[in-house]
Amino acid sequence: MGSNGIDDLSLDSIRQTLVGLEDTIVYSLIERSKIARNSPAYENVTFLGFHGSLMDHLIQGAEAVQSLGGRYQSPEEVPFFPNDLPPSLVNRPNCSQELPAAAASVSVTRNISDFYVNQFLPLLVPKGDDGNYALSVSSDLVCLQALSRRIHFGKFVAEAKFRNDTEGYSAAIRANDRTTLTNLLTDENVEAMVKQRVAKKAMIFGQDVTLDDSNNSTDFKVDPALVSRLYDEWVIPLTKVVEIEYLLRRLD
Amino acid sequence: MGSNGIDDLSLDSIRQTLVGLEDTIVYSLIERSKIARNSPAYENVTFLGFHGSLMDHLIQGAEAVQSLGGRYQSPEEVPFFPNDLPPSLVNRPNCSQELPAAAASVSVTRNISDFYVNQFLPLLVPKGDDGNYALSVSSDLVCLQALSRRIHFGKFVAEAKFRNDTEGYSAAIRANDRTTLTNLLTDENVEAMVKQRVAKKAMIFGQDVTLDDSNNSTDFKVDPALVSRLYDEWVIPLTKVVEIEYLLRRLD
Repeated sequence: MGSNGIDDLSLDSIRQTLVGLEDTIVYSLIERSKIARNSPAYENVTFLGFHGSLMDHLIQGAEAVQSLGGRYQSPEEVPFFPNDLPPSLVNRPNCSQELPAAAASVSVTRNISDFYVNQFLPLLVPKGDDGNYALSVSSDLVCLQALSRRIHFGKFVAEAKFRNDTEGYSAAIRANDRTTLTNLLTDENVEAMVKQRVAKKAMIFGQDVTLDDSNNSTDFKVDPALVSRLYDEWVIPLTKVVEIEYLLRRLD
Repeated sequence: MGSNGIDDLSLDSIRQTLVGLEDTIVYSLIERSKIARNSPAYENVTFLGFHGSLMDHLIQGAEAVQSLGGRYQSPEEVPFFPNDLPPSLVNRPNCSQELPAAAASVSVTRNISDFYVNQFLPLLVPKGDDGNYALSVSSDLVCLQALSRRIHFGKFVAEAKFRNDTEGYSAAIRANDRTTLTNLLTDENVEAMVKQRVAKKAMIFGQDVTLDDSNNSTDFKVDPALVSRLYDEWVIPLTKVVEIEYLLRRLD
């Protein structure tokens, strides 16, 4: 995945990345669904001069560590807490996947953590508080980073579509015409297929696997309909926001 | 999971936890297998006074952040870098899963990171260097923490078995008789079943899911035989080391 990007910006290779990220997202949701809600981890408090939730605090810390390893040198990665990230200790050898600078700055991480914590998580996890907040938050971080990669990959989708129809997009961009951009970007058949496929993945990856073949269980670890809804209500619309914001800055 | 432990130390609930961790391990291996080997992340160097690999450095940092969230207050969690972990910012409300103190200190994390980096990883991942070391190391961390939870859960397995046959185990413990302990702990039928089941999970969770039902693919994301081998060569033997070390300190 790290070697994709603008070097290999065919819609086909982008599609492969997005399909792979569906698996990543489904696995991560299944893992988070095993842990209790642990609400106190999401309530705003003040720790050692940091105001926010324990989740925010731990995610900011984890991102700082990953930044030392060069995570945010990749244009595929958008941090939730971009301020004061420490510089990378390493140089990426193949850091060739550049996007236009202004356009690359598009970020919807606030929208992602907001829908995830306040709307999606209560639907995903069992009620309760087992006190192991670090475990639930590291599991949240895996979910949030996978969702963020998927949604911000919209920049590469938009770039590829722009290259395929530069004239059509340029006219709409210059006119600041979001409706036309939305229409150009939307393919309802593909969206319907994606929603069906992620539900199927939730069924296959979320089944209880036993050695005898009495796999008559319809009891999946994560409700397939909820994974479809995640894509329908949040992932697909936010990807479109990323695509449109990217395109509106594309000619700057 | 967090609410299991000594409160609910039936072999049946322990078995459920171990089976659930099989899924976690298989998902995490599939995710790591998508990323290149990225060898430089595992070579020893000196950064800012820290001698070790970039992986070590990033894992130590990630554990410090998770320690602030209370991760290592749970007896199910054993850090790879236990020195100088910061104290937790939160108090666990239900921290009732205690193990005998001396016995709880058993750790095989060095063996785990050693076999993982030097023996297992080269078999799991494609060759190459995409420069995104932070991404591969965060994926390693998920694998390593899942393997560590699974292997160190041997303490709970050993405790439950000890309670079911306190006399038998106590005699062998007092005689420091590792052979008898190994025999008491080993059930070859169960081990064979576990190895078969994890291979089946690699097949089911590692298939390409498409909407048409032409699922004739035998091309799995992670080789099912490699997952069996992981359990056969490393997970099961190291779990037994944990069980025996735990028991040898059980009467202290």
